Amino acid sequence: MIKPLVRLIDAFKKLPGVGVKQAERFAFFILKSSQNDAENLASSIINAKKSIKTCSVCCSLCEESPCEICSDENRDRKKICVVESYTDLQVIEKTGKYKGLYHVLLGVLSPLDGVHHDDLSIKLLMKRLDAIGEILIATNPTVEGDATAMYISQLVKPRNIKITRLAKGIPSGGSIEYSDEITLINALDGRKEI
Amino acid sequence: MIKPLVRLIDAFKKLPGVGVKQAERFAFFILKSSQNDAENLASSIINAKKSIKTCSVCCSLCEESPCEICSDENRDRKKICVVESYTDLQVIEKTGKYKGLYHVLLGVLSPLDGVHHDDLSIKLLMKRLDAIGEILIATNPTVEGDATAMYISQLVKPRNIKITRLAKGIPSGGSIEYSDEITLINALDGRKEI
Repeated sequence: MIKPLVRLIDAFKKLPGVGVKQAERFAFFILKSSQNDAENLASSIINAKKSIKTCSVCCSLCEESPCEICSDENRDRKKICVVESYTDLQVIEKTGKYKGLYHVLLGVLSPLDGVHHDDLSIKLLMKRLDAIGEILIATNPTVEGDATAMYISQLVKPRNIKITRLAKGIPSGGSIEYSDEITLINALDGRKEI
Repeated sequence: MIKPLVRLIDAFKKLPGVGVKQAERFAFFILKSSQNDAENLASSIINAKKSIKTCSVCCSLCEESPCEICSDENRDRKKICVVESYTDLQVIEKTGKYKGLYHVLLGVLSPLDGVHHDDLSIKLLMKRLDAIGEILIATNPTVEGDATAMYISQLVKPRNIKITRLAKGIPSGGSIEYSDEITLINALDGRKEI
């Protein structure tokens, strides 16, 4: 196979979850697509890499550090919502229901995968706790997410800050019949008076 | 979401078979990967687009037209193997068994998908038939591949050139029990004395 094509396929193969066949498909697609589209993909990569930074306060992604949310004086600066990733932040932000600040952990504690305290932005979170009234921990309801939530709550507790966690229960539109046991137990534990 | 990230996700979303979630995964992977890897992907795209050409003789991909195979005087210039795509050419070439020339059709006839005679490189093939002794048609054994093979053989027949097609039968390592009917019929039709 000709070299520029091999090089392109190899580069695509590095993307997560992409095997040889899909990388080849991508490469042939690039060859077939317009000059404009190909250049757009290349320049988007370079541009994203160059202009996207990590916010020095909350570890979210931004073009200017501190990020828009951290520098927005209209937000409730007494609340911090702790999320695993920038995508989780985006999803919560989209609801329009939360008006406080965020803190992106950049992962979850997972000793088996070699992710420890220092690999996450927990230290940075601890430095932000002055004048904070509530920490809302919004890690995923997985084993690692639960463990990370527990760990952070234990670190924060001595500071006398209210610590909350996203409610666990049956998702909207879901069915009781097909809910797993743990979800049902969580829903029962968290039942609310109406 | 910040603009450079949206732009990158949109660019990845254009790749074939890539949805929003996978495009996001690719984008975050780029942000996490080294500057070097990201630049390598971008430059591979630009470089492939710039330096890969279509061979003016056989429609294969090449850096210099005519391609290496077309300009190789050591190959059997009396035989042309007709394939659907550059990848099919590569696979046949890898066997090391075929030493003739190739012709890449750039697809198969498929009137329902709007692919007709003029969309393929059939005209160019017709111009190459002088001094050719054998045309080996290696289109895929699909409905469209079979129809295209038939179509080309009818065009070539008046020129008194030997026309052959890749043998159809049970693949090596396959089992008779799980072969479909058509494959078995082809294998029976094509049986050989041993």
